[in-house]
Amino acid sequence: MDILHRVGIKSSPDEVYKALATREGVAAWWTTNTQGESKVGGALKFRFSDPRGVEIGGFDMKVLELHAAKRVLWQVVDGPEEWIGTKISWELKQDGDYVIVLFKHLGWKEPVEFMHHCSTKWAIFLMSLKSLVETGKGAPSPNDVKIDNWN
Amino acid sequence: MDILHRVGIKSSPDEVYKALATREGVAAWWTTNTQGESKVGGALKFRFSDPRGVEIGGFDMKVLELHAAKRVLWQVVDGPEEWIGTKISWELKQDGDYVIVLFKHLGWKEPVEFMHHCSTKWAIFLMSLKSLVETGKGAPSPNDVKIDNWN
Repeated sequence: MDILHRVGIKSSPDEVYKALATREGVAAWWTTNTQGESKVGGALKFRFSDPRGVEIGGFDMKVLELHAAKRVLWQVVDGPEEWIGTKISWELKQDGDYVIVLFKHLGWKEPVEFMHHCSTKWAIFLMSLKSLVETGKGAPSPNDVKIDNWN
Repeated sequence: MDILHRVGIKSSPDEVYKALATREGVAAWWTTNTQGESKVGGALKFRFSDPRGVEIGGFDMKVLELHAAKRVLWQVVDGPEEWIGTKISWELKQDGDYVIVLFKHLGWKEPVEFMHHCSTKWAIFLMSLKSLVETGKGAPSPNDVKIDNWN
């Protein structure tokens, strides 16, 4: 079972790729607390905090693929049980004025309530990515848009 | 293949249900051009326009289930080929201060690019529903948040 999303960003594939393939890029739209090295075989550590700044969890991902201006692939190696082993795929293509981002969070075992939450939350973060690239300002955690009681 | 989402709305199940189970409610968060009768066995017609006001398509849905403050189920009877026959399910439950909305768009045949788009767009409209119920103001089409070159 997969979570799928599509956004279009008025920019160049190189700019969108930079926001996905560098630590600094991802920190500016997903979570400011992003550590590690974005290189094939390396690992990225994404951490999230509650409004008081207390760390409440996160994800460790291995970087499986980096194809400049085309594609990024991560695999979750640590985090919530439902996420471990799943893959997160980003594909870029130009379509007129837009860079189309096809997003896939692949390999959920069950359509649990947490998957519903993550699906909506990914859409929110994709809009943050779009905003970052188009305007220079994203809304990464802890200043992300809240969607429900799980945040 | 299903699109899944979860939002939490600070309100009562009755208020959220009203926004889902009445024509006026849906028109205030999804598309202002909503016609038909929201009753079991009835049909709702949702239409969308481009920025110049030209109608560009829409969906006809049969109302299959209406359970006050609990559940709404629609089935697509006309619209884009990929949507025909699919079902759209809304489940409500209270969790603390929030009404949790579990959304499912059930029965996609293929994970086509349009499914990616619709998944993201549903998240945007669920946030519009949340805003409508919490603040009195949604962002229905044609004033919806645009996500890509398909709108």
